[in-house]
Amino acid sequence: MRKSFLYLENKYSRLNKRTIYAVLVTLSLWPSTNIFAQTKNNEPQSVYGFLSTHTQDILYREQQFDKNIDRNQIDKWLKQLTSAPNHLGSSHDLENAQFIAKCLKGWGFDVKIERFKALVSYPIEQKLELVEPNKQSIDLSEPPIPSDPTTSITQGTIPGTEAYSPDGDVTAPLVYVNQGVEADYENLARLNISVKNKIVIVRSTGSGRMFKPLLAEKYGAVGTIIYSDPIEDGYTKGDVYPTGAWRPARGVQRGTLIVKDALDPALGNALIHNKHPENLNGPVLALSYASAKPLLAALTGPIGPRNWQGGLPITYHVGGTDGTKVHIRTRSDWSWRTLYNVIGTMTGTEHPDQYVIRGVHHDAWVFGAWDPLANTSAMLAEAQAIGALHRKGWSPKRTIEFASWDGEELSLLGSRWHVEQNPDAVANQTVFYLNGDTTSRGYLSVGGSPAMSTLLNQVSSSIIDPETGVTLSKRLAAKQAYDAAQRQPLLATLESNTLLPPLQSGSDFSSFVHKLGVMSMHTRFGYDRDGDEESVPIYHSAYDTYAHYQRFGDPGMAYLQTLADLDGHLLLRVADADILPWHYTELATAMDSYVTSLEQENSHQTQAARQRTRLLALDAYRLEADPSRHLGNPTELLPGIENLDTSPLRKAIAQFRSVAAEYDILYSQLETVHAGERLDQVNHHLAVLEQHFIQRDGKKSRTLLYANSGSPFPEIQKAIHASDKNASILAVQDAATAVMAASDELKSANDALKAFTTK
Amino acid sequence: MRKSFLYLENKYSRLNKRTIYAVLVTLSLWPSTNIFAQTKNNEPQSVYGFLSTHTQDILYREQQFDKNIDRNQIDKWLKQLTSAPNHLGSSHDLENAQFIAKCLKGWGFDVKIERFKALVSYPIEQKLELVEPNKQSIDLSEPPIPSDPTTSITQGTIPGTEAYSPDGDVTAPLVYVNQGVEADYENLARLNISVKNKIVIVRSTGSGRMFKPLLAEKYGAVGTIIYSDPIEDGYTKGDVYPTGAWRPARGVQRGTLIVKDALDPALGNALIHNKHPENLNGPVLALSYASAKPLLAALTGPIGPRNWQGGLPITYHVGGTDGTKVHIRTRSDWSWRTLYNVIGTMTGTEHPDQYVIRGVHHDAWVFGAWDPLANTSAMLAEAQAIGALHRKGWSPKRTIEFASWDGEELSLLGSRWHVEQNPDAVANQTVFYLNGDTTSRGYLSVGGSPAMSTLLNQVSSSIIDPETGVTLSKRLAAKQAYDAAQRQPLLATLESNTLLPPLQSGSDFSSFVHKLGVMSMHTRFGYDRDGDEESVPIYHSAYDTYAHYQRFGDPGMAYLQTLADLDGHLLLRVADADILPWHYTELATAMDSYVTSLEQENSHQTQAARQRTRLLALDAYRLEADPSRHLGNPTELLPGIENLDTSPLRKAIAQFRSVAAEYDILYSQLETVHAGERLDQVNHHLAVLEQHFIQRDGKKSRTLLYANSGSPFPEIQKAIHASDKNASILAVQDAATAVMAASDELKSANDALKAFTTK
Repeated sequence: MRKSFLYLENKYSRLNKRTIYAVLVTLSLWPSTNIFAQTKNNEPQSVYGFLSTHTQDILYREQQFDKNIDRNQIDKWLKQLTSAPNHLGSSHDLENAQFIAKCLKGWGFDVKIERFKALVSYPIEQKLELVEPNKQSIDLSEPPIPSDPTTSITQGTIPGTEAYSPDGDVTAPLVYVNQGVEADYENLARLNISVKNKIVIVRSTGSGRMFKPLLAEKYGAVGTIIYSDPIEDGYTKGDVYPTGAWRPARGVQRGTLIVKDALDPALGNALIHNKHPENLNGPVLALSYASAKPLLAALTGPIGPRNWQGGLPITYHVGGTDGTKVHIRTRSDWSWRTLYNVIGTMTGTEHPDQYVIRGVHHDAWVFGAWDPLANTSAMLAEAQAIGALHRKGWSPKRTIEFASWDGEELSLLGSRWHVEQNPDAVANQTVFYLNGDTTSRGYLSVGGSPAMSTLLNQVSSSIIDPETGVTLSKRLAAKQAYDAAQRQPLLATLESNTLLPPLQSGSDFSSFVHKLGVMSMHTRFGYDRDGDEESVPIYHSAYDTYAHYQRFGDPGMAYLQTLADLDGHLLLRVADADILPWHYTELATAMDSYVTSLEQENSHQTQAARQRTRLLALDAYRLEADPSRHLGNPTELLPGIENLDTSPLRKAIAQFRSVAAEYDILYSQLETVHAGERLDQVNHHLAVLEQHFIQRDGKKSRTLLYANSGSPFPEIQKAIHASDKNASILAVQDAATAVMAASDELKSANDALKAFTTK
Repeated sequence: MRKSFLYLENKYSRLNKRTIYAVLVTLSLWPSTNIFAQTKNNEPQSVYGFLSTHTQDILYREQQFDKNIDRNQIDKWLKQLTSAPNHLGSSHDLENAQFIAKCLKGWGFDVKIERFKALVSYPIEQKLELVEPNKQSIDLSEPPIPSDPTTSITQGTIPGTEAYSPDGDVTAPLVYVNQGVEADYENLARLNISVKNKIVIVRSTGSGRMFKPLLAEKYGAVGTIIYSDPIEDGYTKGDVYPTGAWRPARGVQRGTLIVKDALDPALGNALIHNKHPENLNGPVLALSYASAKPLLAALTGPIGPRNWQGGLPITYHVGGTDGTKVHIRTRSDWSWRTLYNVIGTMTGTEHPDQYVIRGVHHDAWVFGAWDPLANTSAMLAEAQAIGALHRKGWSPKRTIEFASWDGEELSLLGSRWHVEQNPDAVANQTVFYLNGDTTSRGYLSVGGSPAMSTLLNQVSSSIIDPETGVTLSKRLAAKQAYDAAQRQPLLATLESNTLLPPLQSGSDFSSFVHKLGVMSMHTRFGYDRDGDEESVPIYHSAYDTYAHYQRFGDPGMAYLQTLADLDGHLLLRVADADILPWHYTELATAMDSYVTSLEQENSHQTQAARQRTRLLALDAYRLEADPSRHLGNPTELLPGIENLDTSPLRKAIAQFRSVAAEYDILYSQLETVHAGERLDQVNHHLAVLEQHFIQRDGKKSRTLLYANSGSPFPEIQKAIHASDKNASILAVQDAATAVMAASDELKSANDALKAFTTK
């Protein structure tokens, strides 16, 4: 029988301590047959992944780690890192890279700066004018705010822009297409309005901004304007900067369009010549709501569906006639620029070829306090604290690497380059990639494989939330209960789902998790306002400054300190684990719930299609409408898949679950006498298990478990959306095969584990 | 066996004809055992309430009636009636009354003008200024709109006002309380902000405007400002006048506060002396959104819940500090003014003491095209058409009365006075009260007893909707299916509920239905935008003009003509019915559904209370919130009634249903050979049946079936809301007793009916 330990939350001191290290009580009487048993206060009895003889070590090490985190130092770093423009290619971005490298070196890391080139396009000229009904030049600048001195630095900054916008000079009628997503074009078709040879103006929300011009051009548009509506992040949400945190009237959200491969010299040179990306021809502009207002106010013609009305004090018309014309002129400097990834390595003593990587990018659109330098500052604190542990004689069992990526804002260039240098090595050697990006104060928000849920739950239930004085996990559970009540006011149960949600896209984890299947996690704090999970009130504008972050992002840097604690504990636990803390029973549970969701999605689609048919038969769309506002009838919907058969996948998941259950039993029987022995074989199988869900072929890869969007079993979902029964049969089969392969991998881990167990 | 007739919709001519009179086909083969059987096209086989020998007569009469409706004439009347200000006491309101009287007289009606006095308060002085943070006088005027000449008539109009506002002169801090309903004050308490000795500013929606200052003063406010937010009926909804129909920035919504009895000389004189109503002390102002904007923009302090944010381009703060103060000064002329109800009577040949009354008010806040003179014009057309039938030799069996009420806007003064003169006589003699008020184009919208559903469905399925070319009932069914799909996208059934919804309050039917239990109906057309069922875009403002109505209310007056057709058919059918067309099986069905709803409401309340308790136990309200925006915890909810026992009421309804079913059988067996005989006894019982749901005691009355708000079984609902089990037992008992009395009344009708049936 193993000895068990118990965390005891000290209820009387919790307001004074960020992190709880309670007395460790040896509880030989405690039943330990179920390693996941929690006390009724939800406190772990043991540290998952650690033999009981090592439990005290890791908890002590975390405590020492926390003592080395200094929020005043974080504050100083943030101030320094954000003191000048930090876009890829700027002198200060390079200075920051050099500073980070110097820090890491000083703290005992082996440091390497990866230098490489990428094709980048920054604007030289951007001009917008209203031509009809009257000539009016539109000011695109972001004026300084006197109370925030950083905003007066305008020299050398990238103006509000969509990077990689084609060079162009077009004058055309303007059409408002809401968010510019497929559903909006369907409604536009119902209004019998075309965007062909017109310029569209769309809101910044609802889809990745790169998809907006692509879709607009698919429908024939010759130019695209993407603007920030105040209903999304302006005065409708709260006071604007500098009174409050939200986007001021002239604040522009920058962004990047899709360039198939800015890292490919051959392709890149063609782009330099063409002055536009592969799939895009018309110029694209980013606009503030102050700049968008005269354009939108000049539109006439019909009014779209109700949700097309935004927060400006005007009635939003669709336009599309010669009565409202705009002129756009854009020219950019397309050239190869040098990027700098900083990699600091501390080699593991037991498993030098197993990497635990923590990454944050260092480039920013302008000054980048929220995005990403607050998190970079937290990462520096983590590296410094680990360096301090190292100086006192400790070394990690596995290699710990800190990665400060460049060029994330130009579509994850730094991390992509790094991974693409040697994908096989990265896949084989990286046991954990922990990513960070925007972060502020509020709730803990984490994404990753559900198999990491036990690790995350244990770590987050031992760290105190600065604003409320309860543990991070307790606050999160309360928020989830609150949200559940909001969604469904009379929900019988408010119990929270403690399984991690899968990672989506948009930050540097993407190359690791979606291309390689590396076990990855993304952590942050934030108030997820209105379901916008990465809400940064002055997102990608020149107002994302140190002064703004200090007032609104994280006053006193209490959350950056907490984030450093959390990330540090995660790194230490994975780096020093006797056995990797991945808990695949939770993946089995999650996979079953994904299948249930897909079945529901299919059945909803069938019902929605039937309902659409019935309403069309009743002529209800016409009869319901004010004729002067009738959108025209919508089309029939695809009916989903009749008798969708998920049973092969269900069967494979059941098999996976039973192997995972056997693993849990074997894990609980791990003999501490074997503590000194290496569990290399077991760990290898645990590490690569989810790679069976990726099919790689050179640079191409196909994900079977999670799409870039985070959607589970994406091939099955695609088949449902296309109502393609045959495709669904193949997709279910492919997914089942992958699950079986993962199951076999876990079975091999079990076989290897048996050598270390009592029976 | 009775002969049956069948309406046949002529599908080929329906676009050319407003009203369908198809060939009447004698269908002796048609099974007629179920009188409510419909063909598969939902067309009635017979005219409910008419013996088969009279069916052809009534259909012919309706056809003749329609020929006499002239929309050009309606247009001329509307133009004339709205050519000058029409508030109670204005010279043009009196001229209109005299004109209506003259018309009715000319068309063969006996005309009486009821002259009486009521206490009315109109403003002499209204002053509003922002005092802190800077002095600014607020312009309260509604400027003329050049393209609408009527709006330049400003002399003699009632300015934007809340009539019966107390005289006052106060300067105090301003607090924004959203809609100023109870839930808003609960949220204000959670923000720890009091309105005591402050002036509140609230939106015009969410409750009757008279309740806003009452509630504000209950919480200690010393003044109330009610303003129209653009999110409700301004640019957020659509283009504002004169570009579009919606409220322009300076448009004010007038209204009336509660005066317990402006018709009581003793009480009224006290008010004249006090210069304020019984329950109100502080001044009350009505404001446009242009006038409200500087006040709201000056507020600081916390931000309320998300739904407190309106459509102005500012962040809405709650205020309540000395930093934002306003000064209000109001003085009014409190005096007795003369009102003029015009009553035109055409005496019935068979039942002169049975009255079928059609009423619309003629007073307006300013010019009053939408509210109410469009409907008054339709009513004139109906009276003229009935006069024309009369000139050609026809007279109604029952007495038809047209009533043009005065003083509706000052809280239904004219109709109240009329009813209160002799309530018993009105209750005993009025078999049908058909009310009208605001109306425009769009869907048919009707309220009344569910027992009138068969009548309404038959009439509305024989009249064509001008905009779509299908029958009124078909358009309505399509809209209901569409709405059901919107509410619950995957609802299995989209079948519409064809039972009439009960009448609420706010127009002249109130004294008839809620005080006396007279069978009443309210008809109108309109686009019920955003659930606002009486949506008039420039409601109660000086912009409610003929020009506005002609462009946006009902271009070409096609719907006023349709409304006249509909109302005329309803009047003719009830006036000439052999047997009153009330169908109490439908009331039984409705009552059962009301009980089910109340049971659900109770169970929802129980669940909501449990959920609230659970969230409070989790400390979820605090932990979920950004501490800087935490509202404070809400209080526990009342838990509803444990084991709510509705069985006595269910039993009584079952009894009522079986008597109603017997009535249906007896009705189907009515012998046409008795056509000449009078069904007086039967009709008497049918007419007074719903009066058993009213308990009258002098001027006081208690409604057991429908509250003023339209809520069914209001005493039971009240008990549920109060979670008072004993009260619920009594309320269920009272309701059951009333249902049993109604059941006995219907049984008496059945007994009387047996004399006329085959068996």
